[in-house]
Amino acid sequence: MPTKLSLKHGRIDLSHGAGGRAMTELIDQVFRAEFKNPLLDQLGDQAIIDPLPAQRLAFTTDSYVVSPLFFKGGDIGSLAVYGTLNDIACAGAKPLYLSAGFIIVEGFPLSDLKRIAHSMAMAAHAHQVMIVTGDTKVVEKNACDGLFINTTGIGVLDDHFLPSSPQPTDRVVISGDIGDHGAAIISQRENLSFITDVLSDSAALTPLINLILTASPSLRCLRDPTRGGVAAVLNEWAQQFRVGFLLEESALPIKTPVRSACELLGLDPLYLANEGKVIAICPAAEAERLLATMQQHPLGQNAAIIGTVTSDPQAFVQMKTRIGGTRLVDWLAGEQLPRIC
Amino acid sequence: MPTKLSLKHGRIDLSHGAGGRAMTELIDQVFRAEFKNPLLDQLGDQAIIDPLPAQRLAFTTDSYVVSPLFFKGGDIGSLAVYGTLNDIACAGAKPLYLSAGFIIVEGFPLSDLKRIAHSMAMAAHAHQVMIVTGDTKVVEKNACDGLFINTTGIGVLDDHFLPSSPQPTDRVVISGDIGDHGAAIISQRENLSFITDVLSDSAALTPLINLILTASPSLRCLRDPTRGGVAAVLNEWAQQFRVGFLLEESALPIKTPVRSACELLGLDPLYLANEGKVIAICPAAEAERLLATMQQHPLGQNAAIIGTVTSDPQAFVQMKTRIGGTRLVDWLAGEQLPRIC
Repeated sequence: MPTKLSLKHGRIDLSHGAGGRAMTELIDQVFRAEFKNPLLDQLGDQAIIDPLPAQRLAFTTDSYVVSPLFFKGGDIGSLAVYGTLNDIACAGAKPLYLSAGFIIVEGFPLSDLKRIAHSMAMAAHAHQVMIVTGDTKVVEKNACDGLFINTTGIGVLDDHFLPSSPQPTDRVVISGDIGDHGAAIISQRENLSFITDVLSDSAALTPLINLILTASPSLRCLRDPTRGGVAAVLNEWAQQFRVGFLLEESALPIKTPVRSACELLGLDPLYLANEGKVIAICPAAEAERLLATMQQHPLGQNAAIIGTVTSDPQAFVQMKTRIGGTRLVDWLAGEQLPRIC
Repeated sequence: MPTKLSLKHGRIDLSHGAGGRAMTELIDQVFRAEFKNPLLDQLGDQAIIDPLPAQRLAFTTDSYVVSPLFFKGGDIGSLAVYGTLNDIACAGAKPLYLSAGFIIVEGFPLSDLKRIAHSMAMAAHAHQVMIVTGDTKVVEKNACDGLFINTTGIGVLDDHFLPSSPQPTDRVVISGDIGDHGAAIISQRENLSFITDVLSDSAALTPLINLILTASPSLRCLRDPTRGGVAAVLNEWAQQFRVGFLLEESALPIKTPVRSACELLGLDPLYLANEGKVIAICPAAEAERLLATMQQHPLGQNAAIIGTVTSDPQAFVQMKTRIGGTRLVDWLAGEQLPRIC
């Protein structure tokens, strides 16, 4: 019985989160219509999933609060799918199922919600994952400034990849240009016309990661450098494994407008968020092959070897600068850019 | 290296969501300290879970936006654990793992966050589920009015219970008094002194549901009547299975102060949210035994048989009133109470 969604002035109101008819209509006509799959069609308050292969699972959650909701190169919908897929893929797992929880402010335009749901559906479909269960809450004006999305994902692990401690002389390989997502968001917020041609790199890394896992049999670690950027990932690993890292500034792949924006705004690209890049640590002997493999994939064209693992009980991340000095790449101390993802 | 959490005036700021050192400290000292378990201690962006039994899984998500955060009988933390456990349990599944995603406004008191995390930890621990992965976002003032929590859960299905269509003459059994959660929240928001002794019924239903599954081998359906209340659950089932329901008003268990509050405020208890009740549909022949079993459990002491399934191609939910008439119990049309869960 496809009835038209009853809503005033094309906007979501509190009734769409109240558990009654309006909510059911919204779910049917926006979310079920877009995410269409037999598991979601079970309705009920949960998805029932057939037994998974007897493999370990990867389970991950992220809430997305990015502002603006629509940005150059993506939107909160595809970002919420890719971001969670990427966290699963970085464990060497194959993403299978996603949940989606929406918190929407009353007055939110239905057209924007449909656009976001469509973007999520396309992103999930392209990477063979199903959005199988969800939740919708609507809050009053001033209780939230737009739309937040939580996605939580389940993947099954391919036991090929067992992360291990980086070893001195191992290489640090990044799959491409650093800081594009952060720069795209800043340029849009600050209206910086000279970086308008920088798009967010928001993308699903699963196909690239599959190649990486094949190319480097002794791969140590894999992580997508999102919030906190490359600096955060390397510092976390340094602390976790009690090793050091030495980056080579001249080797960092950074787009010219991103570099310019950073200079102008006093930002360091090593702390800018990426949403379609991966950092891999592998033995030196496997690095060139890994690099060549990455570069053959559209998501890895600008891949580069950017540094080396060092023996350092103090677990410092350092960088050899262009002018020959060495500087510390510490954790981000404060907040560079809120609402980046 | 337990360092003290560096924060100004005991409040969360944007740096606690920035992916740098402040975020790591917050996670270590609040969430990991409370949720302590080996899976969460893996760190990384995902939890790696050992292979599950070769059984079907229940997978469910809910975002919690309840206001106020602390209410009589509970808080957003325990509610976020119980609510998601209950959705898993209502599928006849055993809850195992939870994720937790936090969206926090800058300036939120650390003491409140700790209290909420502690409440979640106690709730999870009491019911043998582990919070194994999480995410923390901090948004600017005015972007959110406090704290939102998403929990997403995985459970394994006991194949004993396969939901089936309710049949005419089946009985509708509720596990206890209706509307306590909704009434507790209203009384606190509206400062209604005469219902201050009503507590939210927020609780984990897993132990009660285990008893129900044993007591009624031919159980048809099970659901917790949260947002939208008893009326929403029955209307959803009516539409899904093309049956009718006939409730008996005099049989509805409702606390006197809840009834008074509803009369005063023009609310219908059938639409009030419950957070620790379950509705079961079972064959008439099993109803008395099911009722007696429920009543033996502390969460089911006031259980009652409140109605019957009818043959009705129009899928109406109706109620025989105290004065002998019959009225329609339609879906909730608008919004009775925003931010109830």
